[in-house]
Amino acid sequence: MTEPATVIEFWYEFASPYAYLAAARIDRLVAGAPVRVAWRPLLLGPIFQRRPGHASPFQDAPPAEAAYRRRDVERFAARWGIPLAWPRHYPRASLLGARVALLGGDEGWASAFSRALYRASFVEDRDIAEPATVAATLDGLGLPAAAILARATQPAHKARLAATVEEAMAKGIFGAPSFVVAGEVFWGNDRLDEAVEWALRPEVRLPRRPPAR
Amino acid sequence: MTEPATVIEFWYEFASPYAYLAAARIDRLVAGAPVRVAWRPLLLGPIFQRRPGHASPFQDAPPAEAAYRRRDVERFAARWGIPLAWPRHYPRASLLGARVALLGGDEGWASAFSRALYRASFVEDRDIAEPATVAATLDGLGLPAAAILARATQPAHKARLAATVEEAMAKGIFGAPSFVVAGEVFWGNDRLDEAVEWALRPEVRLPRRPPAR
Repeated sequence: MTEPATVIEFWYEFASPYAYLAAARIDRLVAGAPVRVAWRPLLLGPIFQRRPGHASPFQDAPPAEAAYRRRDVERFAARWGIPLAWPRHYPRASLLGARVALLGGDEGWASAFSRALYRASFVEDRDIAEPATVAATLDGLGLPAAAILARATQPAHKARLAATVEEAMAKGIFGAPSFVVAGEVFWGNDRLDEAVEWALRPEVRLPRRPPAR
Repeated sequence: MTEPATVIEFWYEFASPYAYLAAARIDRLVAGAPVRVAWRPLLLGPIFQRRPGHASPFQDAPPAEAAYRRRDVERFAARWGIPLAWPRHYPRASLLGARVALLGGDEGWASAFSRALYRASFVEDRDIAEPATVAATLDGLGLPAAAILARATQPAHKARLAATVEEAMAKGIFGAPSFVVAGEVFWGNDRLDEAVEWALRPEVRLPRRPPAR
């Protein structure tokens, strides 16, 4: 019997450049380790809608902060050799991609599909809101695009994605990318390495209620 | 002749727990390297006041996000062995501390004073808004507390701190802690190591306008 793998839940939104950066690295970071990455697509729209007085931190940021975030993404991409070309239109509607990726999670192709769709958006500047782009991405992976798109847009499946967003919020998730390891939430691409360390080395995990000091 | 040291500007706010974490590490990180840390106190209040519709990301965050940030600070502190005990009252008024630290920047004791004042707030749970706490912190460093407090509260010096905040914003700073290396802004305690790397290894610096890809 093999030891059960520790799971890293990877919660991502196709519109998020920081989630793209995490998607580009996460599988490689745990390659060969007894860790399984669960790719969990989510939508930030419904989460941000419930922030009173707060909309998207990206879209509504003051100019200095918005410019900083772009530069920060560029620095990270350059440092890790991740290709990046800013989409002409931003953010792009990620709903269809998320619905398809949710199916991929059931069937074992969420990682390959999601990485390919991120590349379409953040490297090739294609409009991932278009069904044709999503279909071409599925085709490129040898997956039956027409059948998948039909299933992804069925009412029951749409409702399942909505329920997934509720599940994420119930776990304490409020942004993307987020990672969950043994119930612990890590928010932001810059916490990916910490989340991996928690998965690989349980001895680093901080107890929930630290002793009084 | 010795080579001129690269400067890391360290912009910090005494109310910020993330700035406390950075203050606890920054001098150690560059010890022995040809790098000088310029401790630059600032106030976030005037910066946040100019965010339309945005107040403090800490105070006005939704509950899940606020709880996450506390936990994130605790994880980082535990990982790096930085003592931490949450103040009973938060945030504490940092104005007097910033005025005093600005004097310390002129006279070479900003680092020692600032680290001690952070400890007073985030380890010893003392009210750093009280002149008595600031005075005791100066005393503990063998500095002439009464004379320093008198200078720190003169109108011209108050105006100088206000001008410092303008200087920070002109550089593109919108939060704290921030680091500036060779004109490049890094925001957040989690970017400290990257800022240090830029200071120590100019070859990693990303040009401002990356070539088209």
